[in-house]
Amino acid sequence: MHILIIGAAGMVGRKLTERLAKDGHIGGKAIERATLHDVVEPAVPAGAPFAAVTVASDFSEPGEAGKLLADRPDVIFHLAAIVSGEAEADFDKGYRINLDGSYRLFEAIRAIGDGYRPRVVFTSSIAVFGAPFPEAIGDEFFTTPLTSYGTQKAIGELLLSDYTRKGIFDGVGIRLPTICVRPGKPNKAASGFFSNIIREPLAGHEAVLPVSEDVRHWHASPRSAVGFLLHAATMDTAAIGPRRALTMPGLSCTVGEQIEALRRVAGDKVVARIRREPDETIMKIVAGWPRNFAPTRAPALGFKAETSFDEIIKVHLEDELDGKIA
Amino acid sequence: MHILIIGAAGMVGRKLTERLAKDGHIGGKAIERATLHDVVEPAVPAGAPFAAVTVASDFSEPGEAGKLLADRPDVIFHLAAIVSGEAEADFDKGYRINLDGSYRLFEAIRAIGDGYRPRVVFTSSIAVFGAPFPEAIGDEFFTTPLTSYGTQKAIGELLLSDYTRKGIFDGVGIRLPTICVRPGKPNKAASGFFSNIIREPLAGHEAVLPVSEDVRHWHASPRSAVGFLLHAATMDTAAIGPRRALTMPGLSCTVGEQIEALRRVAGDKVVARIRREPDETIMKIVAGWPRNFAPTRAPALGFKAETSFDEIIKVHLEDELDGKIA
Repeated sequence: MHILIIGAAGMVGRKLTERLAKDGHIGGKAIERATLHDVVEPAVPAGAPFAAVTVASDFSEPGEAGKLLADRPDVIFHLAAIVSGEAEADFDKGYRINLDGSYRLFEAIRAIGDGYRPRVVFTSSIAVFGAPFPEAIGDEFFTTPLTSYGTQKAIGELLLSDYTRKGIFDGVGIRLPTICVRPGKPNKAASGFFSNIIREPLAGHEAVLPVSEDVRHWHASPRSAVGFLLHAATMDTAAIGPRRALTMPGLSCTVGEQIEALRRVAGDKVVARIRREPDETIMKIVAGWPRNFAPTRAPALGFKAETSFDEIIKVHLEDELDGKIA
Repeated sequence: MHILIIGAAGMVGRKLTERLAKDGHIGGKAIERATLHDVVEPAVPAGAPFAAVTVASDFSEPGEAGKLLADRPDVIFHLAAIVSGEAEADFDKGYRINLDGSYRLFEAIRAIGDGYRPRVVFTSSIAVFGAPFPEAIGDEFFTTPLTSYGTQKAIGELLLSDYTRKGIFDGVGIRLPTICVRPGKPNKAASGFFSNIIREPLAGHEAVLPVSEDVRHWHASPRSAVGFLLHAATMDTAAIGPRRALTMPGLSCTVGEQIEALRRVAGDKVVARIRREPDETIMKIVAGWPRNFAPTRAPALGFKAETSFDEIIKVHLEDELDGKIA
């Protein structure tokens, strides 16, 4: 199998690459080659049992996607995106990467023709939905995004389904929950605190909680995200039907429930490292976000996520901290 | 007011142009200029009380939309489209006109900047919906089209809402019902019979009915379509909110009910000109189409359509036949 990962240097891309390197196969078939692409050069995991080529380029530039496809990869993971905040602040850049980039990639696949029909796994987002929301957002809720990022992802989903319907490729769109616990340093993203309040205290650092404890949100671990991607790449797509965008399973819980899970897993001393510092701006942004989902299609198709926040914390401990609490 | 109509040579574009020429004003403001655009040169109605410029070009070509905007029209009617059957048969052409064309038009408006913020009326379609359908499709039904045309229109709606949200223009998307009774000659469109079985018998000609009488569909007259466009161009858009695509009101009735309306309006002699000639291919296509809608937003915002098929026939008699039945 030849795997292409577009957006391989991002957090999810890196974790996917590492998992593929560790497994050495995908869907029971040996991986012979991987093309790892991003706007900066992605890392090749040490000891990867396959030939890996890294490419740094802007895949949204005319002609660039075609180059990535020259050797006809069997599976294409399309993870490249300008994130929500940046796409909102930089209209040009968001549309160029998230819309033009995806469209040009899909067109580049079509241009090959000649029976080439790869599996395309497209990472979408719950940002395709816009408030007001029902209590829990079902699989048939309409996509009326309130951000440019959500708009671009919703358009990507539409293109994915139509190109699939026309037999140009075999697409699966996966709407990821917020990924928690996100490894790395605290960042300025408005959603950062959902991870910060777990990751930083576990590492012995103070974390700031800018919202009240009754804020509810929708989570899955980085390990689950990689699991979604692998399942989307290898599943029998005949069962999906023409509606190719799937809301992934996840866990809905409040910030208070996150903190109580942290207390169960790591104790009062760790929880005491969370400092409350209400931030009106962040509270207002978060108030417009989806809180809960009721996906039935994706679980029926075999996608799995954590069912308690304790589990999500344990995944972080295992995958990032070698089980050690500071 | 300066009005730009893109797609002015099509059936709805011609009727809109004629109505504007007759009224001489729009929303209580005098029309000073109209730019009438299409891929073939549109007609200027005799006696139009405003200066009319006609332009024939491919508006989807880079740079062409910008030319149409050079004089900063106040209202832009974007009616240009490759229709459903052709967009399905010619993937390139459908995407080029229906997606790239709309996107380039919206980008050309953005490129002007400088406080320019026109009203943009975008004609969308009930083809944004894909089977299976509920009994009546409500305003919150999701858009999972099963044609390239429907995909392209759904993408146009998403762009329209996002560009509006960002203050680039003030967009209103209107999902038109099937327009009936369509004037002109019978054509090969799979939907043609809905109009043929009314128009041809009224004009003294035989018409072929290829489906059974229990086939239900969603109709509005050409006069209503023009009414939707004018209302979308002049309404107070503050009441719409961020979800800018509106399912227009219409009339759901069966072919049998169409025929009974024809009998009431024109008598048995006219109805006898309908010849039943079942066509499996057309029956199969029509089986996948929406049959009924339950729009509440558009009627609440002042959009109006016929409430009986008798009315739709009378509109055709008045507007196309000077009231004369053959």
